[in-house]
Amino acid sequence: MLERTYDGQVCSIARALEVVGERWTLLILRDTVFRPRRFEDLQRSLGLARNVLTTRLQWLCDEGLLERRLYQEHPPRYEYSQTEKAKDLIPVLAALIAWGDKYYAPNGPPSLIRHRGCGGSIIHRLVCERCGAVLTSEDLESQPGPGARSAAAGETPGAAIVRHG
Amino acid sequence: MLERTYDGQVCSIARALEVVGERWTLLILRDTVFRPRRFEDLQRSLGLARNVLTTRLQWLCDEGLLERRLYQEHPPRYEYSQTEKAKDLIPVLAALIAWGDKYYAPNGPPSLIRHRGCGGSIIHRLVCERCGAVLTSEDLESQPGPGARSAAAGETPGAAIVRHG
Repeated sequence: MLERTYDGQVCSIARALEVVGERWTLLILRDTVFRPRRFEDLQRSLGLARNVLTTRLQWLCDEGLLERRLYQEHPPRYEYSQTEKAKDLIPVLAALIAWGDKYYAPNGPPSLIRHRGCGGSIIHRLVCERCGAVLTSEDLESQPGPGARSAAAGETPGAAIVRHG
Repeated sequence: MLERTYDGQVCSIARALEVVGERWTLLILRDTVFRPRRFEDLQRSLGLARNVLTTRLQWLCDEGLLERRLYQEHPPRYEYSQTEKAKDLIPVLAALIAWGDKYYAPNGPPSLIRHRGCGGSIIHRLVCERCGAVLTSEDLESQPGPGARSAAAGETPGAAIVRHG
């Protein structure tokens, strides 16, 4: 279903975008992040045509991000819940929310993600695994990894240019 | 240029996706993250048609994510660098890289983002601003924020369904 337009890009961002770059994927994941959702609820939330939503949900199941469960037999009705693979995308969702709140929420954040119980707001930190320092973009650099070496040089323009120079 | 298909969604993810959900935007930002890039370099890296790349770069400049600088006058040649607004997307890029590395890098990560100097790898942490706890998805909940109250109830299906129940 998704156009695989990034095939020439040996890059984990490009590969991740093949899966989550589809416009509605992250919104479906947003709606299923806290609990399973029924097809009808998702359809109402997203305002998508039923056949379009069906296709996208099926694709997310095929990619291992959602699991489908029959909750009613007559007529058959399904609900969708997130797998661990989908839950591992929560830092992406959380970072997108923080950025959208900062630049595109003139009336204040539409929703607030909080620490359950404590009620504190969420901070996103990049931390160095080795020395424990909290990092900003200025502290980062990129190096070719093992996956870059396994591809032919002519096929890795993305990997080549992203290297820090 | 971008289809504004999320207009009915009062949600910072939806608003952020209006800007960065366009398929090539995050790849352009990836390529400019460490230093300014010339048009020719971006075109070679991304393999996009020149007119398509021109349109997208212009759009990113209009949205305040890139700044254009003339580096040669005859013939005119431009390079593009990231603004603070774009740099604030680095947590999104870093989280996408981590996820892509985990699930879509069978030969290992194509590139490694490291702490400059120290060489340590990068960990993404969600931290509670109030109590300092390191959080997982299980520790989060969502509440309507001030931006949700300012919109009419009938126009906020996304904000409504994302509420934790």
